[in-house]
Amino acid sequence: MYHAPLQDLRFVLDELLEMQRLTALPRFAEFSPELAASILEQAARFAEDVLAPLNAAGDRNGAVFQDGSVLMPEGFRSAYQRFVADGWPLLTADAQHGGQGAPLVLTAAVEEIWVGANMSFMLCPLLGRGAVEALSTAATPELQALLLPRLISGEWTGTMNLTEPQAGSDLAAIRARAAPEADHYRITGQKIFITYGEHDLADNIVHLVLARIDGAPAGVRGISMFVVPKRLINADGTLGGRNDLRCVSIEHKLGIHASPTCVMSYGDQGGAVGYLVGEPHHGLEYMFIMMNSARLSVGVQGVGLSELALQQARDWAHARVQGRPIGADATAPIAQHPDVRRMLLTLRASVEAMRALSLYAALELDRARAEGDPALRAAALLRGELLIPIVKGWCTEQASELASLSLQIHGGMGFIEETGVAQTLRDARITSIYEGTTGIQANDLLGRKLQRDRGAGMAALLRDLMRELNDLRASDAAMRSIRNATIEAITVLRDATEVLLYQFAETPARAFAVAVPYLRLCGLVLGAALMARGAGIAARRLEQGGPEDAFFRAKLQSARFYAEHLLPQSTSLLRTVKSGGASVAEADPDLI
Amino acid sequence: MYHAPLQDLRFVLDELLEMQRLTALPRFAEFSPELAASILEQAARFAEDVLAPLNAAGDRNGAVFQDGSVLMPEGFRSAYQRFVADGWPLLTADAQHGGQGAPLVLTAAVEEIWVGANMSFMLCPLLGRGAVEALSTAATPELQALLLPRLISGEWTGTMNLTEPQAGSDLAAIRARAAPEADHYRITGQKIFITYGEHDLADNIVHLVLARIDGAPAGVRGISMFVVPKRLINADGTLGGRNDLRCVSIEHKLGIHASPTCVMSYGDQGGAVGYLVGEPHHGLEYMFIMMNSARLSVGVQGVGLSELALQQARDWAHARVQGRPIGADATAPIAQHPDVRRMLLTLRASVEAMRALSLYAALELDRARAEGDPALRAAALLRGELLIPIVKGWCTEQASELASLSLQIHGGMGFIEETGVAQTLRDARITSIYEGTTGIQANDLLGRKLQRDRGAGMAALLRDLMRELNDLRASDAAMRSIRNATIEAITVLRDATEVLLYQFAETPARAFAVAVPYLRLCGLVLGAALMARGAGIAARRLEQGGPEDAFFRAKLQSARFYAEHLLPQSTSLLRTVKSGGASVAEADPDLI
Repeated sequence: MYHAPLQDLRFVLDELLEMQRLTALPRFAEFSPELAASILEQAARFAEDVLAPLNAAGDRNGAVFQDGSVLMPEGFRSAYQRFVADGWPLLTADAQHGGQGAPLVLTAAVEEIWVGANMSFMLCPLLGRGAVEALSTAATPELQALLLPRLISGEWTGTMNLTEPQAGSDLAAIRARAAPEADHYRITGQKIFITYGEHDLADNIVHLVLARIDGAPAGVRGISMFVVPKRLINADGTLGGRNDLRCVSIEHKLGIHASPTCVMSYGDQGGAVGYLVGEPHHGLEYMFIMMNSARLSVGVQGVGLSELALQQARDWAHARVQGRPIGADATAPIAQHPDVRRMLLTLRASVEAMRALSLYAALELDRARAEGDPALRAAALLRGELLIPIVKGWCTEQASELASLSLQIHGGMGFIEETGVAQTLRDARITSIYEGTTGIQANDLLGRKLQRDRGAGMAALLRDLMRELNDLRASDAAMRSIRNATIEAITVLRDATEVLLYQFAETPARAFAVAVPYLRLCGLVLGAALMARGAGIAARRLEQGGPEDAFFRAKLQSARFYAEHLLPQSTSLLRTVKSGGASVAEADPDLI
Repeated sequence: MYHAPLQDLRFVLDELLEMQRLTALPRFAEFSPELAASILEQAARFAEDVLAPLNAAGDRNGAVFQDGSVLMPEGFRSAYQRFVADGWPLLTADAQHGGQGAPLVLTAAVEEIWVGANMSFMLCPLLGRGAVEALSTAATPELQALLLPRLISGEWTGTMNLTEPQAGSDLAAIRARAAPEADHYRITGQKIFITYGEHDLADNIVHLVLARIDGAPAGVRGISMFVVPKRLINADGTLGGRNDLRCVSIEHKLGIHASPTCVMSYGDQGGAVGYLVGEPHHGLEYMFIMMNSARLSVGVQGVGLSELALQQARDWAHARVQGRPIGADATAPIAQHPDVRRMLLTLRASVEAMRALSLYAALELDRARAEGDPALRAAALLRGELLIPIVKGWCTEQASELASLSLQIHGGMGFIEETGVAQTLRDARITSIYEGTTGIQANDLLGRKLQRDRGAGMAALLRDLMRELNDLRASDAAMRSIRNATIEAITVLRDATEVLLYQFAETPARAFAVAVPYLRLCGLVLGAALMARGAGIAARRLEQGGPEDAFFRAKLQSARFYAEHLLPQSTSLLRTVKSGGASVAEADPDLI
């Protein structure tokens, strides 16, 4: 059963990222380390006591579609009610709308815990949070007053309606229509892949729908955003009748079975009542405003599921006795076998690196809002935005691989559904697809984030990390090995970035053909730099001695394994970035 | 829908591996290229017309357990009857027992086709084949006469009963017991993970069961093999009553839903009648005799499922129009996008390399039986045995990764079960677990196959490949690139082998900790050498011109991509082999 990794989360927040420097700024002043710790502990209790026990049955039974309604698996409704009653949805929302306005770095840590306990459940509040962000940014004060209080409290839930059968990654192809009528619009069209588009957890569902106002320009510049509530809302805020929209069916998916993925039909009876959010034709813009935090969230999902996979593997490997490890004279738990140990270390070291990197990205986005100096704010925003596609792409690709590795550690039992790790693998597989596939993240990283400043932001990040590594005290062989391997890896990433930008200028298709290997290199190397930082802290703490010695020895062990065993991948990724693009760009797709 | 890759299979058999040199030998003389081609074509027709149409429904409905019986999904019974009526089970069995005695290299090609069409179905005949091999090797003539004809014809099916709850990878822990009684034994015990342990495809099931004769020594040297038929067999060969064994339940698995994985209970009523196969206490030995071909078969399953994944990705990527590729002025099929093209090329090039390597291993095992010169036979056997764990480990790990990549190409649709690629991913996941996990393969590769001759067999293989590469005519830049990259990779593998053997002598645990990365390096590099050979043939054929030009241009394209984009992984794997073992061997498992 899932156990929230509080010690490592607190280590990353308090020691690795020094969150207290963020919470020393006025915007987040109330989030003292004590309050943060208390929030994490309460989240852990909720995750372990309420969410985790529902995870396996939620997968087994799934959400059920019945006559246009969706029945959630047993226990989900009361868990959601408790989630609302405990005030969790308030955590992220801005104070000006009645929320607590917690920093992203803290809410990301909380989300990691919840996702590890029950990914399907957590998608509902995550979507609601997205709706709140979009409305807070762009909706009129009237619309905000009508919707935000109950979305922020969690009394109502929210959705994002982007995809249509012909419009997936390519939102320019959206066809849903909006016809003006009095103070609102009439929305018609079909949307697919709508997460929690219908369910029985709350009294109303607030759909945010992308559609084209009649006569709008073609392409992405003609798309507007609308609020389309499931039940109409009277001016006094009470609920009216059903709007003209319905859930047509839900998908039968590989994973996240308890999260209903809906086909939604708008306007079968002539048009659903919808309200324009912000300006006409700016829908995609608003969608992209919340994209950063949405993509960060999905990256964090990768971390949470990887942590779950690690725990499942660890529990199994320490309990399962099988065979005599090399050099031993009796049978022993399989964790003693070198190859199982390699897999366990891969899981643990990777999870630590992913956690550190995802929270570092969140911290930069927080600083972008909280720093007093506009130059610091701008620099933090650039860095946060640069990191988002890396966190999203790398942590989610890793999640699938790590879940598969955890299953491998389980041997034949891993393939049996009752064991539980197969669900982790199935649930994890969506994360590198939704909110933009890894290919889309890599395109964003190369085509926008690197390109907009010709790599200056990446160069600055690598300079900062290099300076830190040069200052890292390496008092023993393990620390020297960690430091030297990481310094080398940083130069590798610097080279790769230069080569890639050069290619981009010369032959863009060649650069895009290696953008995903480049993204993985970024995750691997940036993760390594944070692991090295953590090792430095751990070494200092061990010199001081104390009750947490085992934790810090484990930190050093993970960091060394990461540097010596995993980080060598960086040289290959550099070579692929250098020489692997032409054979793709010059290939004839009809011959594949 | 699956389409058998006949052109590439024939290319590998006829041109890459020159199978005609094998079939020029007396043992396989009747298997002319024409006959081989005809067998492949008939197998393709059976796969496409009969097996593939059952694959999705077999997954959806699965095998059903009911009151001790297992009902196979609709269509499986008639497909099996046709399989038997067409004489397919005869293909592999030795001529002396009434089979056709086809070379392994040909039957492996046929199996690849069948697995691509319907993996769950194929496991039944594969198990039967294993039983035939074991009985042919070790059973008394009487037992052979009683069982083999109907096993070889497919009238009866066979199973392997190894695993018990406490005895998975570690067969020394087997507890099932055998008590002598008259001319037979009474078998008691529980076995798990018994593939096709119960089903309704055939009138009888011949279980091969590992158990300990009362008073046998502890450990692996006290295990014997027994034949335990589901229905007793009278002396005249007619069927008698039910034996004292039953299927207790079947597993709910991640994949291969149509292949019943049974918990079997023997001797609930006092003891199932079983007949000793061969000598007492030699059961594991007999099991290992068929291990080579069984592990090769599982490697081939990896190839077949990867080919299916490739076809699913290709079909989707050429049909799905989404977005405007870089440099294009209109929307286009996603196969045009550089990153999708990278993924498609990864699938295609990998499948070609895996197919070539798996069939090469099969060819060596055939030569080990067919060559006239005992020295040639011995050398071929050593090489075939060296390749088996590489084929099994590498092709199956690749299968999961490639199926996941194919799913990624499908985007959100890939996560929907109806699309079909999710099944491929789920089915593929077992292949790197059963018949020995990848860790077990790597242990075999390092601890037995390399160790027994201190790497001489590997060195000879690399010398042969290097000589061939030095002779490879490189008339253009692409061929030069392929040749040079492959030559470099061979030296990398040579270095890695030396380092590993040195480590093994000094600190075995350190070597075992990088045995899996080493195994992957072997697959990657040996596959590259065969890709380079194929590219050389393709270049020659293109100079001659002809109707198959597109096929040979595609070959060159795949080989170039493999060399320039995938092969760079070899340098990282070498580094991990060199420096990644200590951080595992010296780790404290309690700190993971």
